[in-house]
Order: sequence, then structure tokens, then C-alpha cells
Amino acid sequence: MDGVDQLAPERKKAQFDVDEMKIVWAGSRHAFQVSDRIARLVASDPAFRKDNRAMLSRKELFKNTLRKAAYAWKRIIELRLSEEEASMLRSSVDEPAFTDLHWGMFVPAIKGQGTDEQHQKWLPLAYKMEIIGCYAQTELGHGSNVQGLETTATFDPQTDEFVVHSPTLTSSKWWPGGLGKVSTHAVVYARLITDGQDHGVNGFIVQLRSLEDHSPLPGITIGDIGMKFGNGAYNTMDNGVLRFEHVRIPRNQMLMRVSQVTREGKYVQSNVPRQLLYGTMVYVRQTIVADASCALSRAVCIATRYSAVRRQFGSKNGGPETQVIDYKTQQNRLFPLLASAYAFRFVGEWLKWLYTDVTQRLQANDFSTLPEAHACTAGLKSLTTTATADGIEECRKLCGGHGYLCSSGLPELFAVYVPACTYEGDNIVLLLQVARFLMKTVSQLGSGNMPVGTTTYMGRAEQLMQCHCGVQKAEDWLNPSAILEAFEARAIRMSVACAQNLSKFTNQEEGNLFILDIGSLKLFRLRVS
Amino acid sequence: MDGVDQLAPERKKAQFDVDEMKIVWAGSRHAFQVSDRIARLVASDPAFRKDNRAMLSRKELFKNTLRKAAYAWKRIIELRLSEEEASMLRSSVDEPAFTDLHWGMFVPAIKGQGTDEQHQKWLPLAYKMEIIGCYAQTELGHGSNVQGLETTATFDPQTDEFVVHSPTLTSSKWWPGGLGKVSTHAVVYARLITDGQDHGVNGFIVQLRSLEDHSPLPGITIGDIGMKFGNGAYNTMDNGVLRFEHVRIPRNQMLMRVSQVTREGKYVQSNVPRQLLYGTMVYVRQTIVADASCALSRAVCIATRYSAVRRQFGSKNGGPETQVIDYKTQQNRLFPLLASAYAFRFVGEWLKWLYTDVTQRLQANDFSTLPEAHACTAGLKSLTTTATADGIEECRKLCGGHGYLCSSGLPELFAVYVPACTYEGDNIVLLLQVARFLMKTVSQLGSGNMPVGTTTYMGRAEQLMQCHCGVQKAEDWLNPSAILEAFEARAIRMSVACAQNLSKFTNQEEGNLFILDIGSLKLFRLRVS
Repeated sequence: MDGVDQLAPERKKAQFDVDEMKIVWAGSRHAFQVSDRIARLVASDPAFRKDNRAMLSRKELFKNTLRKAAYAWKRIIELRLSEEEASMLRSSVDEPAFTDLHWGMFVPAIKGQGTDEQHQKWLPLAYKMEIIGCYAQTELGHGSNVQGLETTATFDPQTDEFVVHSPTLTSSKWWPGGLGKVSTHAVVYARLITDGQDHGVNGFIVQLRSLEDHSPLPGITIGDIGMKFGNGAYNTMDNGVLRFEHVRIPRNQMLMRVSQVTREGKYVQSNVPRQLLYGTMVYVRQTIVADASCALSRAVCIATRYSAVRRQFGSKNGGPETQVIDYKTQQNRLFPLLASAYAFRFVGEWLKWLYTDVTQRLQANDFSTLPEAHACTAGLKSLTTTATADGIEECRKLCGGHGYLCSSGLPELFAVYVPACTYEGDNIVLLLQVARFLMKTVSQLGSGNMPVGTTTYMGRAEQLMQCHCGVQKAEDWLNPSAILEAFEARAIRMSVACAQNLSKFTNQEEGNLFILDIGSLKLFRLRVS
Repeated sequence: MDGVDQLAPERKKAQFDVDEMKIVWAGSRHAFQVSDRIARLVASDPAFRKDNRAMLSRKELFKNTLRKAAYAWKRIIELRLSEEEASMLRSSVDEPAFTDLHWGMFVPAIKGQGTDEQHQKWLPLAYKMEIIGCYAQTELGHGSNVQGLETTATFDPQTDEFVVHSPTLTSSKWWPGGLGKVSTHAVVYARLITDGQDHGVNGFIVQLRSLEDHSPLPGITIGDIGMKFGNGAYNTMDNGVLRFEHVRIPRNQMLMRVSQVTREGKYVQSNVPRQLLYGTMVYVRQTIVADASCALSRAVCIATRYSAVRRQFGSKNGGPETQVIDYKTQQNRLFPLLASAYAFRFVGEWLKWLYTDVTQRLQANDFSTLPEAHACTAGLKSLTTTATADGIEECRKLCGGHGYLCSSGLPELFAVYVPACTYEGDNIVLLLQVARFLMKTVSQLGSGNMPVGTTTYMGRAEQLMQCHCGVQKAEDWLNPSAILEAFEARAIRMSVACAQNLSKFTNQEEGNLFILDIGSLKLFRLRVS
């Protein structure tokens, strides 16, 4: 069967309009056209070549990233791409790079936490990339617990400056992408100290390297933290380490939208509600869910095509063996992942709506939906990234030995994806947050506090605790409301049972172990048996 | 807390004699002493340096492997190491290399499938490494289904030769380690054809490269199949591709222990039972289970030490944060993996006994325990490799962001380990074999055919189907026989229920999906709730 297109007969079997589905997937005809046009532009330009990524040494790989980033910037200007198109181009280049942090974290941090004067001074420099910034929050000893950061920024009223310092080994900034080799500036998170008083963690704009010769400024020690998982993967990123030895910055480089330090060294909290910062979190998690669907769909696409082409066992009278995709054991592993990729795509679109809704409410000082929105995005971030990381590895195994070759694309897809389970909230820590929110919601049932958003169904707890599933035969499951009610009944029953069991624990730690089951994927699995 | 040994206080808490445990782990005082001495020898020799493995380009990495393999060989001779010590040295060097295939597959294949004359001719050359061999079985289109191999070896009675040929693209040999760059010879598996008749797959010794200048011999196309998962990992191995264009070899290079082709081209099967070959399978799977315990224990060791040193949240009055190992959520993920590493170690030792037992029985023409021994090793291979691959990744996640750095050791440990889920029997295919064996055993209950070995308990099916668990309080679980009986009762109930459900399926494919649950890990999980 050499040389025959073995996918064509499979493709002919599609029972839906493939072109229409492309538009549904993209979100709109316009979104499809932009993404299709930009993807072709990137695919046809040899400067954006990707196939050698797993073959290059780290140094060559990183040089290549610098080259691509500069070239992408040049093309964006030459072609006068819109912001949407430019962002699509960067995502089609599909290579983690310092620019992700510059555009995705440094600029938004200044926009979100800076004052109008700070916007006027720093944003134009950042937009023109005359400065390149990163986001220096995580420390060697401190990840999830942001309140435990040790770097200090002590106000010196004599000189009207902050003194930024790394007092311990564990206070070294560790991980920031773009820091190791490229960034000239950083938003640095440090404990704000005025007159001996610790006011907790605040953001500061700090110049790291000379704009003349790119060497680190006095008092600053900086480096790359070395190889990461995979061949190419995140090794295109210069994740870095950074230490300060009493580095002085002017007072006006503290990001002062929410809290300020006056010329006299007085700490003032503005009347901007801190909750406003949660909007950013919803936004970032929405992009993570969208990325999950993108990564999982790529893995599923590879594994599905492979399963159609690969044949193994079942030859009759010396004829061809059976296509692997026709084995139930293969379908049973692959098809739920295919369905998940679509589900994540659509829930990602819904999260865009949630972000708009939350933003509008925040602007109207309505914080009522915030806890639910926070729990919902935390849960979805954890669920989709865990399922995607596991799903990519499952797709790799579904390709047998061939999935182990870099040429299958799957090893690098896995290696570049897995950090999503850890960054922006470790998945296990997030599940605990979801579980605690559910327990709180259960405890308030009957208090008149009606559950909102995705937990609205909990308001019907009494009915759901007693209802019987109306499904009689397999076809009845094709009715979405039957599935929805089954999930609702299961979720409320598990939550209430968990709350009851939880009341037996005096130690919160013991309880955490117990409620983890509730926050976890198990809640989202229906077993019909 | 910079510079303080934070592990010392944890180590002091051990409630067992650590030195005694080392000996239990090694299997005997002698085994411990050998492994300890050789490990130190390797660790202290800069020629065996490992820390730069993830940093080298593929070419540099491979050159390094050649250098190490030659140097290891030199040291083995200089130090007059015993076979046990030499094998320990190679395993301490801890780098997949062509020598694994030469010693682990090529030599055993000739030993097991060759005649005495073939032993006399080839083994001395192989022992002195005057020839280097690999094991060319898997083809681009054929992995698990060995009977589907397409390479042909056609006897030509005119010249008393076999003509080895690759008739299709999918018949290209694909994956053999040591093939891509190093091997001079291979045991090639091909369909034996005499006088137009296909006698199925047999092994043949084929010279691939010139012993003068190492160039491929006429009619032979050969290459390296490229980068694999991870930075170092299996990229130290020259997995290769190989095609034959009517390559002629003398008749006496067919491995003729089990079947022969005479000078006249007559195919003869000897009276050596084919079952003898199963002994090798048990042996190989025993080493895979031993490797699983080794890989998992390394991952657990890293994650446990990290969990003791890492602190996050829970600081009281500005004191140090809580050690991550003290969180139940961490313990709940980590400790079962620690227990599994020990369990796999001990079951690996037991498999050594099983191998001896099977070998002795085979020599006495007793094949009665073979189906059970085969199912048992298939199940253990699948279970331990799946749990180890997942466990290494879980350990990586338990180290948070730090687990993503190659310097943690975990990414490479994962990348180098995962092929074990696919080679020597794909884990899902093996589970189906276990499940079918269990179903067959259930169907024969009451027929007078008493179940043997690890399935002996099934002979007590009636009692186990009805018994009640005697456990009243938590402490009762410390009694191993209570646990054993619970597992036995669960296993027989699941097996019988599955057999009953299975009888409803007319289509075997549908049934496979169903019985997979039985062969899978689920059988080995007890949930007490």
C-alpha cells in the first residue's frame, strides 16, 4: 500500500460539513480567516522553520529564537498587521520566547498596576520594544505562596529611592522567562518596607541591564537557570535567576495604582478595590483554557491520523491488517480525548464571556459573582491542563513506538505543555480552592444566600438530592438536559456527603485530603453501570 | 536557613536500621557490596560524567556514548571484573547504548536459538566484541504483531543461500538499537520461504557493515531514525532503519535450534519444543520489573528529599514555612509511590525465582505452569511499567516548578523510562492477554483443572465469593492475610462478574473493551470506604 493516501477514505466518511466545523472551531468566520491566512503565512516562510527545533544545541536554539522574534516583529510592521493578526502570528510561530513575557506579563502588569503617569512613561518604550521586560515574581524558595516572597524594597526617605535587595539564597528570583539573557527591565515583586514596617508584596519597575552594552547594572547578578524538559520545548526560553545587592531605584518606579508611598515615606492605600486585580487572573486563566484545547487537539489530531494509517493484527488470508482505529480499545482511549478537545474549546469561548461579565461587574463595584467566577476559573484551569497533559502523553502512547520519536511531534508537545499544570496556580492547590468554595457554598444553603453562576443548580439541592435519573435506554443520553441533570445531581450529592464527612475532622490538613476528591476530576466523571 | 543540612533531621527520624534496609533492598550483603563498590567506582571516575548529558548536541552526546562504552570495556578488563561486576558497571554508567543490545539481545538470541556449531562460530567473536550485534525484529509497519513481519528470507537451493529482502516500505526494519551507527551484524527476523512456501518468522545472522571500513555491505541501506523524547535519554542510542535489496547469506546463518532448512531446501522442525522460547520472555520481563523498581525509587528519592527541603505556606509569626512533606496532600501522592517502589523491588526478586522454576520445569518437559507464568509476567510487566512511568511524572509534579528543570533529574528519568510501556509487549496488549487468561481460568473452574501459581486462590472461588471481610478497625489492616484475602475476594468477584457480562457479547472486539478493566490496574486497587 506504499504511496496510497490512506487518510482520504477516512476523511470521506465525515458526516458533518468540515468547512463549517472549521468556523465553529475558530469561533467565527472572521476568526477562521485570520487564523488560516496567518498560519499559511508562517508555514510558507522558511525563516519560521520548526522541524529542526529538536536537533539544535541549546545555544543554536536560543539564537534561532532571537532571530525569529526579531523577524516576526519586522514582518508585523512590514505587513501592517492588526493587533489580532500580530498575536495570531506569534502564536503560529509556536515557540516559547521572551516576547511572551514582554507582551503577556510585563506590559499588562504596568497597564493594570501602574498609574497614568507610569503608563505614559513606560508603555511607549515597551510598545516600541526600546525596552524589553519580564515578570520577576517567583523566587527559588517561593512559588505558590506569593505572600512568602523574601525580596525587599526598602524606602530611603533621604534619597527618595527604594533599595531592592535579596537577603537570602531562597529570595533569588528564579524562573522568570525572558530574564536569563534578554530583558532590560523587569516588574519585580518585593516586600515593601517603609520606616521598618513590612507592607507586603508590591510590584516595582527595575532596570536590569544597560541599554548601551546589555551588561547587568551594578548590584545585579543575573543568569540562565539551564536546560528544561524536552529538546526544543521551553529551551527556547531564557528562564532566569536574579539577585539584587542593595539596588537603588527612584520612588516613582513602584507600581502605584493600588497603593502608594509618598515623598515622606508614608504608605497609603488608594480607594481602588484590590478585587480589581482578580480580573487579570480570570483573563490569564481563560487564555490557559484556550491553550489547553489547542494543545490537546493537536495531539489528538496526530494520534487519530496515526490510528487510521497504522494497521496491526487481524489480517485475513494474507490481506491487510486491521486499522488500529477500528479497535475498541484504541477508540476507548482516543475518542474521549477528541471530545475533550472540543469541550475545552467551547468552555474557553464561554470563559471569554465570563471575563467580560466579571470586568463589567467590577467596574460597577459589583463583587457578588467574584468568588464563584474565581472558583470556576481555578477549577477549569486545573481540570483542562491536567487532562491535556495526561491526554498528550496518552496520545503519544496511542502511537506506539512511533510516538516516542520527536518526528511524531508528540514528545515536544508534551514537554512544552506540562508547565501549564504548575504555573499560574499549581493544579492541586487550585483544586483545594475549588473544593473549599464548594464546601462554603453547601454550608450557606438555606441561609438565603443563593448560589450564583455555575453553582446555581445548588439552589435546587433538595430536589437534586432526591431525584431519579429518567434515562431508560442508551438513546436517552443524547438529550443534553438528561446529562446535565445527572451531573448536577452527582455534584450536589458528592458535595453534601463531603461536607458531612468533613465536619468529622478537627484538623484542616486531614480534611484537605478528603475534599481534594471533590475538587478533582472525579466530579466530572459519570460512570453509568 | 542557607547552608544548613535540612535533610539530616529527617534522616534521624528513621525507625528502622538503614544499613540493614540497604542489604534487604540489594537482595543480599554480597549484592549490596558489589553494587556499592561499583557505583562508587563509576561516580568517582570523570570519564563516566553524567551531569552534562542534557546539554550536549546529539552528535557530541553520541560520541560520548562511544567513548564511555569503549572505556567501560577497558576498565572491565583492567580490573578483571566478574560478569556480575561488569553488568553492574554497565548499569551504573546508566546510559542506553548499543552495548545493551549486543549483550542483552544479540548474544542471548544466538545462545537461545542457535545450534552448537553456531555457538562455536559466533559467540567467541561477540564476546571479544570483534563483531557488534543488534536485534532487528520490529519493522516500520509491524511491532506487536511479530507474525506480520514482511522481510523475507528465501532459500536458493542453487547456491545454498538465503536471499534477504525488504519487499515494501513498511517492511523496513525500524527501531533496533545499535543498528543506526554501530552494529556490524544483526539477528534479523524474516519470513522463511522455501520452494514458494512461507514457514513464518525465523531468525538469521546477517552481516551489515564491512569489518574493514564499517561501510554498509552491498544491498544494505542503513540509517539512524533521529531524535527521541528528552535531551539525553535514548538519544545516546543509535536506533536505526535497515533495508535489504536481495542480500545473500549462507544457509548456516539461519538460527537453527528449533527449525532447520536442509541442503536440499527441506524445512524441518526439530523436536525442541517451541515453548522453550518462553523461558527467555520470562527472563526479559523479570529484568523489566527490576528496572521499574530502580527507576521509580530514584524518582521517589528525589521527590522525597525535595519535599523535606521545600517549604511553602503555613509560616507562623514570620517563622519558617511548613515543610511540604508535612502536607497530607503531598503525602497522599508521594507515599504510595514510595511503597510501590519497594513492592516492585520484592516482586522483581520473586520473578527471579519464577524464572528458575519455569526453566527447570521446561527442561523436564513440564509445561503445566506456563500459561499462568506467562500471564503473571505479562501483567506484572504492564502494571509495574505503567505505574512507574506515571509515578515518575507524578514525582516531577510533586517537585513543583523545580521538577521541570533537567537539573532535578526527573525530566530525563521520565523520557528515558517511558519506552518500557511499549517495548517487549505493549502494555495494553499485555493487559488483554492477562484478562483473557483470567477469563479462561474462570471458565474452567469446576472442571477439575485446578488453577496454579498466583491464581491458586481461584480454586477457592465459592468460599471467596461469599466471605465477609473480617476487618473491624484500622489496625486490622496491618495483618497481611486480611489484605491478601480482600484482594483475592475482590479479584475473583470481578473476574466472575466480568465473565458473566462477557458472555453477553457476541463480538470479541466489544468484549475486549470490557475485559480490559479486569486486566488493568483496577484489579490491584482496594478502595475502603
